[in-house]
Parts: sequence; structure tokens; C-alpha cells
Amino acid sequence: MNEPTNLSRRRMLASSGGMVALAGLGGMGTAAAQSAAPAAAPAAAGAKPLPEYVKWKNADSLIVHSANTIETKRTAFGSSVITPTDRLFVRNNVAPPSADIVKDPDSWTLEVSGVGKPRSFTVAELKTLGLQALPMVLQCSGNGRAWFPSKPSGTQWTVGAAGCVVFTGVPVSAVLEAAGGMTDGMVYMTSTGGEEIPAGLDPKTVMVERSVPISAVKDAILAWEINGEPLPLAHGGPLRIIVPGYTGVNSVKYIKHLAFTKEQSPANIQQTGYRFAPVGTKGAPTHASIWEMPPKSWINYPSDEKQQVKAGRVQISGVAMGGMSAAKKIEVSVNGGKDWQPATFVGPDLGPYAWREFVLSAKLEPGTHQLASRTTNEAGQAQPEERLENNRGYINNSWRDHMVSITVV
Amino acid sequence: MNEPTNLSRRRMLASSGGMVALAGLGGMGTAAAQSAAPAAAPAAAGAKPLPEYVKWKNADSLIVHSANTIETKRTAFGSSVITPTDRLFVRNNVAPPSADIVKDPDSWTLEVSGVGKPRSFTVAELKTLGLQALPMVLQCSGNGRAWFPSKPSGTQWTVGAAGCVVFTGVPVSAVLEAAGGMTDGMVYMTSTGGEEIPAGLDPKTVMVERSVPISAVKDAILAWEINGEPLPLAHGGPLRIIVPGYTGVNSVKYIKHLAFTKEQSPANIQQTGYRFAPVGTKGAPTHASIWEMPPKSWINYPSDEKQQVKAGRVQISGVAMGGMSAAKKIEVSVNGGKDWQPATFVGPDLGPYAWREFVLSAKLEPGTHQLASRTTNEAGQAQPEERLENNRGYINNSWRDHMVSITVV
Repeated sequence: MNEPTNLSRRRMLASSGGMVALAGLGGMGTAAAQSAAPAAAPAAAGAKPLPEYVKWKNADSLIVHSANTIETKRTAFGSSVITPTDRLFVRNNVAPPSADIVKDPDSWTLEVSGVGKPRSFTVAELKTLGLQALPMVLQCSGNGRAWFPSKPSGTQWTVGAAGCVVFTGVPVSAVLEAAGGMTDGMVYMTSTGGEEIPAGLDPKTVMVERSVPISAVKDAILAWEINGEPLPLAHGGPLRIIVPGYTGVNSVKYIKHLAFTKEQSPANIQQTGYRFAPVGTKGAPTHASIWEMPPKSWINYPSDEKQQVKAGRVQISGVAMGGMSAAKKIEVSVNGGKDWQPATFVGPDLGPYAWREFVLSAKLEPGTHQLASRTTNEAGQAQPEERLENNRGYINNSWRDHMVSITVV
Repeated sequence: MNEPTNLSRRRMLASSGGMVALAGLGGMGTAAAQSAAPAAAPAAAGAKPLPEYVKWKNADSLIVHSANTIETKRTAFGSSVITPTDRLFVRNNVAPPSADIVKDPDSWTLEVSGVGKPRSFTVAELKTLGLQALPMVLQCSGNGRAWFPSKPSGTQWTVGAAGCVVFTGVPVSAVLEAAGGMTDGMVYMTSTGGEEIPAGLDPKTVMVERSVPISAVKDAILAWEINGEPLPLAHGGPLRIIVPGYTGVNSVKYIKHLAFTKEQSPANIQQTGYRFAPVGTKGAPTHASIWEMPPKSWINYPSDEKQQVKAGRVQISGVAMGGMSAAKKIEVSVNGGKDWQPATFVGPDLGPYAWREFVLSAKLEPGTHQLASRTTNEAGQAQPEERLENNRGYINNSWRDHMVSITVV
């Protein structure tokens, strides 16, 4: 059986003239196919292959931690603001449902409750209620976990459990209007995912159901499209709630129930999971929930994944996000944070929830240089030097942790 | 030999559990594989397969006119502003060069002349000079040709020889600065493509060399990336000049020479090709060159490719571009242009050269409806009712031609 080859590989093989024989690649395996690709770092020997449900992704751009946790390489973000879907990270709390659910996306059904007229909507019906294209940073709560000295359990993400994408769907506010408005006194918006709960398990222990403050309704959408294509299963198709500015777990995939509630969900993932607990302490409802994202930036080019940089003018570029408001200021240091100089935002401003590309042209002498970036958002929040320690390694936005060391020759 | 399957096909096949046997698909051929895909119209019987150099594209979203002319389906643009690269149209004036040129993009060389210090730059060198991400509409000069009653020769494009993408590269102004500035008295920016000229032919008859007014330097870039990925051969990789606001032919692919000149290129494609000549008249230097794009809009959903629409609230959406300045106003008619109502721009504003998504929610009774849109740009130019007739069918922005007829049941 032949493995489908990845996009870069196929582009390289493609020639203007005749057909290209792929038959010989059958025995190479994914790692070998990766190492022949042109514009990306060769995959490490023994790199895990992409799982079947994301086989369409660009293997050269990704690090497969496990079947449900796949990270974008720091050198694979590009500089076009939007992260291509085939390079976007994947993180599922439990195994995704059957791919059958994305065969006829328009027939997927969403229940809406905690409203004047509780009812269900098919995706086809949602598509008649409104339209919004929302550029935003999707980021896993645990992005940057690899740098916590307490070695929290969970995937050891560095920068690549994040991407800036355009989700398209209907504003939650329009759905609320069609369902008779929110019942008085509701405090949370609670979303339930469509994962199948294995028989014999207490649903609370595995269900993906998350509550966010009602203030998040304002900019949230129910999305059926990502970057111009129908939302694939790996990213929550056929329908996902998108809560911009919040960490990824709050944007529940394959959403089947949207409820406006007085209490937070009783699911473990809400009550004890995704809590800001002190190191050595288990998460509990008394700890802050992992909701809003703080400002954060990092440098992608050059980075330590790139072997050597030529002395002279070096273009340092990366991404900066503001969290709940736009990134306003960006500074870069080429000496490990001793001195800072202003960098420049380039490219389009896609709104408060997207990230900005930034660039600084610096003259670098041969030797080792520590490159760092730090951003401040419109609300005046600055990216801090140090991470806030916590038991599970959430929300790391330390500029020191994200620093890269490069060798200039 | 197995054909690589397309993205949608692979997404559909992917399941959350085990491996999926692809071996049996070898004999199906591309058309058969397409018809099994979920979210797109089945390919017409006898639809041409994708040529090898663009085999990585999404076949379900495209109409293959020929190996060098491939159109995006009207229903495949999505609503996320940016057109995914695997759905973007392809149009080459001559066969593309060997795919070898994108194997090591950084080593591609560009000559620069008509400057203080004529010299060459590798792409690696260009990458140290500046960075700009430029969202813009890429549109073939002949997009909309299918509606000309004079039946001009050339590909019979309807709306799909266009897309809105982000090109990333270095501003031409930064390259000029590094090359000692423009020589005094230059009037045109002239770009030469890297196509191989077959032996025995007069180069002028086939070379792709285009001149644009020097005013275009201001916003032009030399791009090595599209939508966050290295520029593929099909779209002009390793290096393409991007002249925003101008028709696609002016953004020369695989650029090998950038010259600032007093005269326009002597190539046929400049002197007699891409001229606004009266019907029945051959193009000549006395006719206006096909350069700047005018304002244009069209409706994508619902469109006549979609079989039936349910009566009641219907969401009408499409795209509007301003050409050389941003689209400012958009109106929609549901009765063939008799009455117009304002539609709403949705999603991010990506700057003057990008298009905007628009939407209008209208209550439609059963029957046939003629849906039209028209836009006006910041400079006050309005999209006209009628096309401007010309010999080759260029620059069709007639709102009447772009109207769609839908059946509401």
C-alpha cells in the first residue's frame, strides 16, 4: 500500500512535463519521504508519521507528539500572517469522532438551550442567520509547557501549539436572536462536544464540555469553515464554537449543544481540568479557570532550528498577539534581553484577536546571539520576562523562555 | 501506480481509528475519485484531470480548461476572504519551467538593471532586505471572458480566474535602495520571466516580459511565499514580482530580470498582446495596455451552480474588490438590477488591494430570482452594468454579466 505523499513532497516531484512515478516511494515510509522535501528541515530519524485523520497535513511542517497532539515547527509558520490549515497544530482531548460526521456537514444538528425558545438548528439553518469571517489566534492552553522547570505532565509544546487562522460562521448573537434571546440571569456560555462517550464510563470524566463567561458571547461564532475550506474533522468540523481571545480548549469541537447556564459545566474538564493550580496541587473549582489569553510574541526567523546565519544584516521576524486586545508594541533584543529596540509590524492588521507579523533588521557580528521579543497590547498589558508557575504548565508567555540562541558565522 | 488523491478525498477517507486502504483507488482515475468527495459538486463526467505540476490542488474545487488554464469554481471560494492556495486558479502563458527551479529557492538569482549599481541578488540576499505580507486580488486579465458576445479567443473564464491571497516578500523599493536607486528618467518597471525559450524561436514571440508604469513600484513586492507556504512553481516560485491592483499577467512568474526602463518591453506580449483593441482589430502599441483593474463584485452563494434554494431567509454572499483602491460600497439586487439594497461587508479588511466578503439576508419567495451585485471603490469608480467590448475579452466587470439566476422552492 502506498502512503499518500505530503504536499511539499508532491510539489517537488511534480514536473511540467509528463507523469512522475510515485510507485517507488511505497516502501520509503513517511520519515524518508520527509527528508527528501525541499524547504523544510529533515524529519528526525524515527519521527512519528501523521495519523490517518490528518494524513492530508504537511508532514514536513509538523512534529507528531501523539495521535491527538501535533505541533507546528517554529520554522514552518511562514510570514503571511495566516497559518495554512495543512500546517496548523492539532490537539484533541479525546479521540475525534468518526469522520462520517463531516460527510454531510449541513445536516449536523446543534441544540440551543437557556434561551427564550429552546430549539435545534441544522448547520444549513445556521447558514441563513448571519455570516462572519473571524481572524484569530488559536492556541492550546499548554503551548510553551516544555519550558516549565516543574516538568508538568502533558504534551511538551514549545511555540507550535498555536496558529492564526480565519474561522467563518454565524455570530452566536445572531443564533441567540433566532432562539428568542438568552434567559435572564445566565452567567456562562456552555458548549458540549460531539465526542462519543465510551460505554461504562461516567460521562463527566471524559466529556468535553466547557463554560466561558457570558461576556464571550459578543465576539463568538459558530464556525463551519476554516481558511476558506469546510472545517475538517481534525479542527472540529462540521461545527465548532469559536471563542476568540480564549485558549483553544474553550472553542469546543463538533459542538452539539450550546447552553446558556447559571453554573459552570460539571464535567471534569471544567471543574478540575484547565485550572491555574499551584505546582504540586491538583486543579479545583477554587482555582482560576484557563480562559483568556495574555499577550505573547516569539521569533520564528532565524531560530535555533536553522543551523547557521551569515554575518551582516539579518532580518529577525516573528509573531505578536495581544490576547484580548490587539498587539500594540513590539520590541526585539539581540543580546538576551539586556537592550531592546523597537521592531516594526508588517503586513495586514486582521483585528484584535489575530497576531501581527513583525520584523527587525539587525547587523549581527559572528558569534552566538540570544534573540528575544516582547509585546504590549492595546490594554497596556506587557509580555513578562518570567512565566507564572502552575501545576499543569498553562499559559506560558515568558519572553525569556521563548528566546532563541543563534550562531552567526 | 497510484495517483496521489486530493485533499478532500483524503479528508473523507481519513477515519479516527485505523488505517484506510488506498491501494484499491489506483485504477479509479481522478474523475472517479472526485465524485466521491463530500462537500463539493461531483466532477462532470469527462472532466479533465489536474496536470502533474498542480496535482496537489483540490480537484473538486477546480475546472481544468487546459494544462495551463485552471479555474476556481464559483461555489468553491468559501467565505474566509483568503482563497486557499489549493483552490487558486492557474494561468500560464507558456508551459512552466522545470520544477527543479523550486528545489532550492534561496539560490534563485534576480538581475536588477536600470539602477545606480546594476547587480544580481539571490533570493537568500533578498530575504535580508525587507519583509512585506501583501493581501491582494490576483486576477487574470481575461476573467469574465465567457460573457463577451463577440466570442473572443482564449480561455472562457467566468468568475474563477481570480483569488484573494497573501503574497510575502521584499518591497521593490527596498531592492532599489540596495541597488543604488533608479536611474534618472526611467518610465517603466519591466520584469522578465524565467521560462525556457525553445531553440529556433524568436524570443520576442514567446518571452513573458511585461512593463508597467513606474508608479507601480510603490506597492510592488518580490514574493517567495503565498499564504504562508513557499511559492510553488504553479504560482511563479521561486520568485515572482507582485504588482497589486494590476491584472495577473503583470505579476511575472519565476522573475529573472527586473529592469527600470525608458521604453516598454519589445516582447509581443507587451507590444501587441494584452491591449484593449476594438472588436475585430488586432492589438497594437497604440491601444491601451491591460494594466490596472477596475472595481468588480460577484455573488458566490447562492449561485446557479447550486441546484435549489429553500424559500424564506436566504443569505446572499460574495466578494467585492475596488481595483486600485478599496471597495467602499456594495449593493445587491434580487430582481435583476431593477432595485438595489445595501449589503454589508463582513470579515477583516485586508487593505486596498484585497477583496471584501459581503452579505445580504433577503426573504425570497418561491420562483426564479436574478441576483446581482455592484460595488463602488474609494475613488468613486462604480462597477458598470455593461462590459466594455474589446477584441480579446479583457477586464469584464459588468454586473449584468455576473448576475446569477436561482430557483427558490
